Amino acid sequence: MNAPLKIAIAGLGTVGGGVVKALTARGEALSGRAGRKLEIVAACDRDESKKSGLDARVWVNDLHAIAQSAADVVVELIGGENGAAPSLVEESLKAGKHVVTANKAMMARHGVRLAVLAEEKNLALKFEAAVAGGIPIVKSLRESLFVYGVSAIRGILNGTCNYILTQMEATGRSFEEVLKDAQRLGYAEADPTLDVGGGDTAHKLALLTGLAFGVKPDLDGMAVQGIAHITPEDISFAREFGYRIKLLGIAKITPQGLDLRVQPAMVNAGTPLADVDGVFNGIVADTKQAGPYFFEGRGAGEAPTANAVIADIVDIARGNRGPAFGVPAASLLTLTAAPAGSASSPFYLRFQVLDVPGVLAEIAGHLAKWRVSIESMIQRGRAPGEAVSIVMITHETTHAAVAGALETIAASDKVVAPPCMIPMEAK
Amino acid sequence: MNAPLKIAIAGLGTVGGGVVKALTARGEALSGRAGRKLEIVAACDRDESKKSGLDARVWVNDLHAIAQSAADVVVELIGGENGAAPSLVEESLKAGKHVVTANKAMMARHGVRLAVLAEEKNLALKFEAAVAGGIPIVKSLRESLFVYGVSAIRGILNGTCNYILTQMEATGRSFEEVLKDAQRLGYAEADPTLDVGGGDTAHKLALLTGLAFGVKPDLDGMAVQGIAHITPEDISFAREFGYRIKLLGIAKITPQGLDLRVQPAMVNAGTPLADVDGVFNGIVADTKQAGPYFFEGRGAGEAPTANAVIADIVDIARGNRGPAFGVPAASLLTLTAAPAGSASSPFYLRFQVLDVPGVLAEIAGHLAKWRVSIESMIQRGRAPGEAVSIVMITHETTHAAVAGALETIAASDKVVAPPCMIPMEAK
Repeated sequence: MNAPLKIAIAGLGTVGGGVVKALTARGEALSGRAGRKLEIVAACDRDESKKSGLDARVWVNDLHAIAQSAADVVVELIGGENGAAPSLVEESLKAGKHVVTANKAMMARHGVRLAVLAEEKNLALKFEAAVAGGIPIVKSLRESLFVYGVSAIRGILNGTCNYILTQMEATGRSFEEVLKDAQRLGYAEADPTLDVGGGDTAHKLALLTGLAFGVKPDLDGMAVQGIAHITPEDISFAREFGYRIKLLGIAKITPQGLDLRVQPAMVNAGTPLADVDGVFNGIVADTKQAGPYFFEGRGAGEAPTANAVIADIVDIARGNRGPAFGVPAASLLTLTAAPAGSASSPFYLRFQVLDVPGVLAEIAGHLAKWRVSIESMIQRGRAPGEAVSIVMITHETTHAAVAGALETIAASDKVVAPPCMIPMEAK
Repeated sequence: MNAPLKIAIAGLGTVGGGVVKALTARGEALSGRAGRKLEIVAACDRDESKKSGLDARVWVNDLHAIAQSAADVVVELIGGENGAAPSLVEESLKAGKHVVTANKAMMARHGVRLAVLAEEKNLALKFEAAVAGGIPIVKSLRESLFVYGVSAIRGILNGTCNYILTQMEATGRSFEEVLKDAQRLGYAEADPTLDVGGGDTAHKLALLTGLAFGVKPDLDGMAVQGIAHITPEDISFAREFGYRIKLLGIAKITPQGLDLRVQPAMVNAGTPLADVDGVFNGIVADTKQAGPYFFEGRGAGEAPTANAVIADIVDIARGNRGPAFGVPAASLLTLTAAPAGSASSPFYLRFQVLDVPGVLAEIAGHLAKWRVSIESMIQRGRAPGEAVSIVMITHETTHAAVAGALETIAASDKVVAPPCMIPMEAK
């Protein structure tokens, strides 16, 4: 057997603790997979109490000691887009160490620069755990699905949002109520902004885009919308039309350029993404003539994420050290973004209006001016003089046209709340 | 850039032709992924007309010339469990060449011996294309999902059977009629036995079992049943009970040993496997505390299979050359098989009986003797003195108990056709 692979771990929270536990409990089986012993030689955490689960000799006091340790691989699990995490990764690579990270924010923002550095030094930089937890989507895009090129990625990449939407559907309760429950159960953070605002999905989508299309991850060119405006009424109308509402990360090659966005979308019931429930993640990758592939599994949590980290470590132990994004980072392209609002699909529209004569004519008139044509319309119930919902499904049109029409409609004194628009990602 | 990777291809049928086409049409992109040029240096086929798509200089006349060519990698696409294919692979490995194959029958029967030979010589033996076409399930089990161990695999692994069952459900037509259509459309072979009899699924399941559990692929210990006995009536009853009938390959670690079988099963509607339609394949891998993962995609056809072959070639080009089954082939275990008939689940039973007084009492009596208890029963319609169907769902029981009861029941003069039993793989 080869020499042991020496590992240094920065960050002993849920994931780091899980990695230590699995490497300890399943050391022999994992060494069999790796073809060599996997040995933790250094570990640190801001919280000194984390020392307890470890061989005392491996504890070190700071990140500098991790980067300068005897390790072959540094595992970065401290998180954070800027600051300590990218500094540690940079110092580790400069010190000749391979790096494994679960840090999506850092990789989305600094991944290309760090990958260039790694590749100059012939080192691996791996990040399976940064996207969709235990689902091997990073490896699959990097090493399997590239042959004919990928034309589109659609993913449910945030378990918190998917849990909230699933619970809203199951209970009919509001976003705010379900969010509070999710926080109590530990499925949502005290500050849930990054999850429910779509930012976390954006980080992951940026990384998948890099892997799928050979382009630089681009957060700045991405339209990002969260789920806070979705109502139980939207969800129940969706069901009635044969759809479910999911927060999707979408990346598509279109004639206008790369269409890249995070937003709630109507997904056809009975298609794989529609059936991804609760905290699970799911991803569809369209690979041109090789067809669509679908992956589903746990997108977060100790074991799934530790699984992804350890699989990366074993890859490095086996000598699988290709470029982070599947092609040399220095050769990643900058794709032209499709113009804002050019994404085209049917849309679901919901208006809260006063139930007075002429309101429908006014809305229809504004939509017609923007050449948005209506496929079907529902107004449920009557409440003369009070607020009711009007729901419409449009024929295929652009986001820009619908947004333009809705801006005018929102200004009407008969419209009592901001209108809601949700694209229908039918196929 | 590194030296080119030299490739020899044996067999230029649908898949081999697809590999040549993709390597030619997308040479530059694929070289970027591989980190080196991918160059075909030799190719052969029994059919000399296949020469036409190739650079004339690479054509050779026999398999011996492939194995002794200047290639770094030999791609075996001639098929067949015994004879030419394993001889070619053996000769190629002995000549120091890596091997990529799509040959499930050969790998299920001779894979361990060939992998031992490859590993002794530090060569790669890869077979992604042998299971589920373009779905990267071989790589995922080998390199990603092993960390906590796999407890169960359930797969729809044969597109022909899944197409036939899907069409039977959609049209209400019989197995025989739909099979004829499938043959006409090219979805089924002239001799469909290997597909519809479950043998093809058995080959693939044997390989997945090796990868998932670190055991020797075992065809002989596997109970294999096909789909020819399934009727449109079974499919429509299944739907009524909230299930769909799918031909599954099932491998589970149980307290009694490894439960390994191919058979039609009732799968809960709304679960991922139930929604795999037409020629698609789907696989669920249960990875203990890291949870279940689901993969779906095209299981056959030129582009998906060529994709899998080329991904293996690129892996070899990149130096990813770990053992074929994820652990050294010489260390693969022989797991004790669970006793025949010990698999336990609820069962769907269908009896064709004469509609005469006492028939239900007689059936119920035999089931009670075998301690099979009934959860629900339907007898649709009345036809005094003629044949009618009685359908039952049992509580959880063993295959052996149900089979025992059915043997006695089949002997009754009131029972006019062999009874049908289908396990319900509920979760």
